[in-house]
Order: sequence, then C-alpha cells, then structure tokens
Amino acid sequence: MYRILFTYVLFLLNLNALSQIQVPGMPTEVASTMKSQQDAWNRGDIDSFMVGYWESDSLLFIGNSGVNNGYQKTLSNYKKGYPNKEEMGNLTFSNRSWTQLSDEVALLIGAWKISENQHGMYSLIWKKTEGKWVIIADHSSG
Amino acid sequence: MYRILFTYVLFLLNLNALSQIQVPGMPTEVASTMKSQQDAWNRGDIDSFMVGYWESDSLLFIGNSGVNNGYQKTLSNYKKGYPNKEEMGNLTFSNRSWTQLSDEVALLIGAWKISENQHGMYSLIWKKTEGKWVIIADHSSG
Repeated sequence: MYRILFTYVLFLLNLNALSQIQVPGMPTEVASTMKSQQDAWNRGDIDSFMVGYWESDSLLFIGNSGVNNGYQKTLSNYKKGYPNKEEMGNLTFSNRSWTQLSDEVALLIGAWKISENQHGMYSLIWKKTEGKWVIIADHSSG
Repeated sequence: MYRILFTYVLFLLNLNALSQIQVPGMPTEVASTMKSQQDAWNRGDIDSFMVGYWESDSLLFIGNSGVNNGYQKTLSNYKKGYPNKEEMGNLTFSNRSWTQLSDEVALLIGAWKISENQHGMYSLIWKKTEGKWVIIADHSSG
C-alpha cells in the first residue's frame, strides 16, 4: 500500500514539474529534455545537465559577465561556478512562453531558481538541428 | 578652421560609434537604427529611442524582474526607470555578434553601458516584418 502511495506521490511531483516546464506550443521533446536537465542538475550531474545544448563551438552563452562561445567553455564554466552539489542548490524551471520564430527556430522564456537568493530569467533559442531540438543560445540573468 | 576641425572630430566620433554597432553580417539598416536609438537615449528622448522596437502587444522584454509584454508597457517601464536625463546617463552599445537564425530572423548579442555602475549584456531578436527589421524580443541584464 505504502509503495503504491509513494509511487503515486512521485507521479504527481513529476506531473507538477512537467506542468511548470510545458507551455503552449512547446514540442513535448523540448519539455522532456528540460525535465531531464532539471533532474540531472538536482543530482549534481552537470555533464548530463548539458544534454540539450548544441554540442558545437558556436553555442552562445550570455551570462552576467559576458558571452562565452562553445559547448566545452559553457560546460567548464558551469563546473567552475557550481563545484559541488551544495552550491548547485535545487533547480526549478518555470517556463513562461514559447515563441516560434520560424519552422525550426523558437524562443523560450522562463524563470530559473536554485535557492531563495539565486534566481532569475532565461531566454533560450532552440533550433531543430539534424531532427533534434537543441539550445543554440542561452541568455541567463539574475 | 576650427569649424572644419570640429566637424571632422564629430565625423570621427560618429564613425567610432558606428564601428561599435556594426558587426559582420548585420544589415546596415539595423546598425543605423541602433545608432539612432543610442543618439535618442543620449538626448533624453525615450520615445525616439523606442523606434526600432516592434510596435506590438507581442513585443517581449525580459529584464531582471521578469517579462513584460508589449510595446506600451516597455515604453512606460523605460520612462519609469529613467525619469530624467541624469538617470539616463550616457548609453553606448557594443555589439558582439549577429547570428542569422532564418532568412528573416536574427540574434544580436552585445553589451550596453550607461555609467560605470550600470552596464550589462543584451540579446535581441530582430525580425524582418513588413520589409523592416524590428526588435521582437529584448533580454537585457546587468
């Protein structure tokens, strides 16, 4: 009985997480990628968190300090900025709007939070590349 | 003689401003719009500064506090945030990259500065709408 209840609670938590991620117009593939990113972050796995970003030297990451080019640079900056699970806090994404810019490009706007003191906004450019939606530009602020 | 020298200095300053705005791939129309925006801001004219933004309720503005929808809301927020010429400081744009996302949509990344203490990054989505390039989304942080 408890196991069933536990499974049901996990199922509801999962639904709730997805409901904050899924916004009208967003492909379910993207929602699923972002749910996996959130889960990966919250178990302290930055390498898996990066799945969904375009694995290219042309990936653009705009943070408070400027622009970084490339997947490897973005990955290493995340690892430097969040050296352990404590620093990583508990990430939640709350998406606001998905705007299709062309057939294969869209702008996603949302809010991120990892603690009471660390939260902000992001705008992500998603592009369907080789049949898969990937983030080609991330502007995160807060 | 002084008048010629003065005109020449103004011409050089103007060239310098354009050189910080124009980046490879950017249509000259966009560079010219941003130069006009910078000039309008620096004479305290927020209405003229807004020329270049999409005049639509769907304009997206992402700032530190969240998302604002619409041209009018963005305009009134600017006026609230910068009530007079002193608060407006001296704006300079320093563009970093223009990335074409489709034939009619592009991402522009750059840095803004209005004083030593107020500066940051922006990412602008430009879209060719009715034959004219306009900003449909602005994420400004700093």
